[in-house]
Amino acid sequence: MTQFRPTYYGKYTNNTEDPALFETFKPKIEVYRAKLASGILDKYALPKEVLVQDPGSDVARVAEKVLTPNELAIVDTPAHQLVKQVASGRLSAVQVFEAFAKTATAAHQATNCAMELFLDEGLKRAQELDEYYKQTGKTVGPLHGLPISLKEHYAFKGKVTHGATVANIESVSQEWCSLVKILLDAGAVFYIRTTEPQSLMHLCSNNNITGKCCNPHNTRLTPGGSSSGEGAIVAMKGSAIGVGSDIGGSIRAPAAFCGVFGLRPTQKRLTMQNCTANIVGVGEAVVPVLGPLARHAEDLDLFMKVQIGAKPWETDPSIIPLPWREVSVPAPKDIRVAVIYDDGVVKPTPPILRGLKYAADKLKAVGAKVVEWESFGVEELVKAVNCMYNADGNQGQKAAFAASGEPLFALTKNALSFGKADQPLLAVEEHLLVQTREEYRERYLRKMLELDVDYILSPTYFSVAPKLETARYWGYTSLWNILDFPNVVFPTGLRCEPALDAPDNLHKPRNDIEAYEYALYDSAEDFKNAPISLQLTGKRWFDEELVKAAGVVHQIVLA
Amino acid sequence: MTQFRPTYYGKYTNNTEDPALFETFKPKIEVYRAKLASGILDKYALPKEVLVQDPGSDVARVAEKVLTPNELAIVDTPAHQLVKQVASGRLSAVQVFEAFAKTATAAHQATNCAMELFLDEGLKRAQELDEYYKQTGKTVGPLHGLPISLKEHYAFKGKVTHGATVANIESVSQEWCSLVKILLDAGAVFYIRTTEPQSLMHLCSNNNITGKCCNPHNTRLTPGGSSSGEGAIVAMKGSAIGVGSDIGGSIRAPAAFCGVFGLRPTQKRLTMQNCTANIVGVGEAVVPVLGPLARHAEDLDLFMKVQIGAKPWETDPSIIPLPWREVSVPAPKDIRVAVIYDDGVVKPTPPILRGLKYAADKLKAVGAKVVEWESFGVEELVKAVNCMYNADGNQGQKAAFAASGEPLFALTKNALSFGKADQPLLAVEEHLLVQTREEYRERYLRKMLELDVDYILSPTYFSVAPKLETARYWGYTSLWNILDFPNVVFPTGLRCEPALDAPDNLHKPRNDIEAYEYALYDSAEDFKNAPISLQLTGKRWFDEELVKAAGVVHQIVLA
Repeated sequence: MTQFRPTYYGKYTNNTEDPALFETFKPKIEVYRAKLASGILDKYALPKEVLVQDPGSDVARVAEKVLTPNELAIVDTPAHQLVKQVASGRLSAVQVFEAFAKTATAAHQATNCAMELFLDEGLKRAQELDEYYKQTGKTVGPLHGLPISLKEHYAFKGKVTHGATVANIESVSQEWCSLVKILLDAGAVFYIRTTEPQSLMHLCSNNNITGKCCNPHNTRLTPGGSSSGEGAIVAMKGSAIGVGSDIGGSIRAPAAFCGVFGLRPTQKRLTMQNCTANIVGVGEAVVPVLGPLARHAEDLDLFMKVQIGAKPWETDPSIIPLPWREVSVPAPKDIRVAVIYDDGVVKPTPPILRGLKYAADKLKAVGAKVVEWESFGVEELVKAVNCMYNADGNQGQKAAFAASGEPLFALTKNALSFGKADQPLLAVEEHLLVQTREEYRERYLRKMLELDVDYILSPTYFSVAPKLETARYWGYTSLWNILDFPNVVFPTGLRCEPALDAPDNLHKPRNDIEAYEYALYDSAEDFKNAPISLQLTGKRWFDEELVKAAGVVHQIVLA
Repeated sequence: MTQFRPTYYGKYTNNTEDPALFETFKPKIEVYRAKLASGILDKYALPKEVLVQDPGSDVARVAEKVLTPNELAIVDTPAHQLVKQVASGRLSAVQVFEAFAKTATAAHQATNCAMELFLDEGLKRAQELDEYYKQTGKTVGPLHGLPISLKEHYAFKGKVTHGATVANIESVSQEWCSLVKILLDAGAVFYIRTTEPQSLMHLCSNNNITGKCCNPHNTRLTPGGSSSGEGAIVAMKGSAIGVGSDIGGSIRAPAAFCGVFGLRPTQKRLTMQNCTANIVGVGEAVVPVLGPLARHAEDLDLFMKVQIGAKPWETDPSIIPLPWREVSVPAPKDIRVAVIYDDGVVKPTPPILRGLKYAADKLKAVGAKVVEWESFGVEELVKAVNCMYNADGNQGQKAAFAASGEPLFALTKNALSFGKADQPLLAVEEHLLVQTREEYRERYLRKMLELDVDYILSPTYFSVAPKLETARYWGYTSLWNILDFPNVVFPTGLRCEPALDAPDNLHKPRNDIEAYEYALYDSAEDFKNAPISLQLTGKRWFDEELVKAAGVVHQIVLA
């Protein structure tokens, strides 16, 4: 057997780039971009003058400049209330759609969060739903008339699905991603598919098809990734609920950086049928999951209830028939949480530490149990998960990139250098990583039982949203992908403030990645207004309790 | 990437045998055997004269020669009723234990089914349980006083656990196998650990520690494997319930060959913590499961209810918190089943075809829906699962054998030659196999939906119990290990009869493995009295419905 020595931050070597070949794809990219641009309909668009902005601007509320008070009220209504208002006839699907269409258009104009806009189709769908309601007096399902945004890489029948890979720019989906189909059957209205980075493996957004997306709260910063556009559009109220996917932080980083809720559920609860990705075959050592982004904790619950209520296991045998249980909302004093102030690899920056302490103090003040979690195993687990990502020796990703010769971004090269980079793992090496994973799953659960806590409160990333194209350390999120403990990211209501959050220049980096990352937070001024968000983690499979607890913790912290 | 070309029945090459080294282990084996022999207590033993037997004898009821009518009534009582009788005080734990102790001793004397007998400990435990009941008027749990047999390779605190590997012959378990501990906490009485083959990968029983076990219904035949001793002891009524494990047929082949019930549950419902095996690391492409063998369908239900009722997920995060649901018993006319008469690789022999037709006719007669299943994908799936077994290039098994230099049996070499044999798989190769597996899981489920059936009725093995040391084709069972659809094996009440089951000499083998296997059934006379058993398969995760349906189907077939 080849001795197993995973390299932590390896070197990317083989070249898949081919400028001449890529040249032949440029006209297709132009067509794609032109279609995206033409998706901005005049009737919904922001006037150009409103869009003028300086780097670092806060554009999160720019849509308000064109929304009527009624429209503003609609986009401010939580999804679980909105569906009731439509179901009761107080609002029409078209009214709801038009408020979100305007807002989504503004969000795209301000941040470049869309890959595809099809507002006419959305309007038509809303009209049909209203007609159905008028004819029958009934809704088609529990999401009747709810505008939902979708990350681009879910198969959408009849539309191109490329997963941010240029070579796939003309690949039309023949089937629906099953999860999207469940939303459709429940009455959702689709009108936007949002952006994601090349390789789907950045905590950022850049790709060769539609370029970068920026953070609505500070356009100098990243919205996060890989569900980049979902973070931006949900924060800007351009959809009632967004759908992201996460194998290392791809729902949670955008949710955190953009200041909204994001749920990474335990695996095998939501169907993954027909999601596009480049990795060869289906590995099981670490698996991606789909999940919602939203502005209200209760809307995570609504999303899960609808998805699981559709009994996806009846046609997808990989999904476990665990019903979405109705659990009670815990009393504030019954919350029991351990706090991670440092994962031992990359120390959190001052704004994040401020957020953690603020939340811990608020929790203690209401009588909740708050203890400290002494981190263990993070470096080993992050090494392991990084090896799992690239178990195929990058064959899938590289073949996909080589097919168009597209240039690779620095963060793509970073992701391709994870683990053993281009050297494929042996199955037995992956089995040993899985054994490590299993041991830590037990140890983490045992530690929670020993500490007598139900939840773990931690950073989502070591800092607030970083500048575009810089984030390389995913440990605060990928830890939970390998352990498969579910997480909810929530905003604390705090923002990065230059007066309070000056960089800590005294901290001595403990390793190379900390040296790199810690230096990224070089000036509080540049990060001004970035949301301070936290991540609440629950026990594996107990997503229901976690979602309810996250809502309560959020309320306690905001109070 | 190395091109993936799995070899179906490869060649075993590297030698781990070392006669000189093995010589040093022989004294330890003698000690082990002597301890086993001394475990046969005079007070429970069969007189020697009773044991005289010819090859091919039926020894299944030999214990009856020494049991009192009361003792016979006890071992004939289903486990779920026995626990009620003990709980109500009608029977004491000691009374129950002594009936099973006599029977188990006879079973071992007749078949060599035990690896370890510790009847004194069992008696002491039963006495303590009676004392507890006397003092408190309560039982310790739902299995209070129930004698349960255990396959040897589950960690048993304070006892040697070797998994039939000579090198481990002095390895004392420091912890309990979690599933065994749940039984203990529920009140089970342990007194026997049963035999299993070298490598745990034969459908037979031979090992270098305690040798062969034989089939109680015909001592020329195998009891099956790898839960060999469990098949024999449960058939001989030497335990109320037995615990086996299965990654390719290891619960189901012994259950079928010995004519009892066996359940292979869907994975991740019962805890696997602390089971010994030689395979390196934890692979997930195909995973072993534990499960019960019993003489009554309701006892499978009892076992599952107790295991899952213990909420193993509270300390084992790999276990899914799916409660064991109480489901209703289906009416005979509501059973809907597709029948596999041939898997397309190895045609069933005349007794098995007779059993299938008999069952199908009985089912039709009560108004059940019976359609034919046209097999598809079996060869590809069996190739895939064979590659998964040896994904580590046999490193784990070979290292374990090399540590004692023990001789390898032909069936061990057969198992080591599966898939790519000594050539380790790449992780990406395993991922592609997993992708194939996922596709077929969907296709099999879709086919069930199309045919509008809930269950699949099939052979467990292409024939009745084969002669010792001959079985090499596991496809009828391993198909369901890779697909992870749960199965119950049940007896039809029929036996192999020379007058009815003459070999079919006209069938032309379609491939090498069929040529080998089909020739094994060379004379109905040699297989006389072998039970004809069938396998009922349900939908993934729906073990509850399957167990109930298997009970109903069994009753219909017996009627």
